[in-house]
Amino acid sequence: MHRSMKAKIVITPKKAVLDPQGKTVQNALIHMGYAGFGAVHVGKYIEVELAGADPQAVRQQIDDACRKILSNPVIEDYRFEIE
Amino acid sequence: MHRSMKAKIVITPKKAVLDPQGKTVQNALIHMGYAGFGAVHVGKYIEVELAGADPQAVRQQIDDACRKILSNPVIEDYRFEIE
Repeated sequence: MHRSMKAKIVITPKKAVLDPQGKTVQNALIHMGYAGFGAVHVGKYIEVELAGADPQAVRQQIDDACRKILSNPVIEDYRFEIE
Repeated sequence: MHRSMKAKIVITPKKAVLDPQGKTVQNALIHMGYAGFGAVHVGKYIEVELAGADPQAVRQQIDDACRKILSNPVIEDYRFEIE
């Protein structure tokens, strides 16, 4: 079957890594008067349109691309879903 | 109930808006030899830890924060889920 798929990739800083952007957003929210908001983590979201026919092969390719170019595995985690 | 919740927010450029970052990532993927990848859209992912007790109130606050500070509604769309 040759239906169009889409990969939705989320890349976040690892928990142990400083997240200054998240800290800044958290401070901004507090100063804007939002109560009840705790820690904020800021990451990237990447959507890739896929033409491949084989979900298994596509999944492999996306994982490969995430590890090699889309994320920095030293400081970031990634996860994705294909739909 | 006072369990801890988390808001997962995805902010993406509107379809009609140029996405040079997405285009650049797409070109990089093509040059790295990944076939079958189509258009790429790059956005932001924000995770907010929540202490509030009332999911309905929290949802309202997150929506408000998304519209007012986390996204630029002129050029970006946002969506979120709370879990």
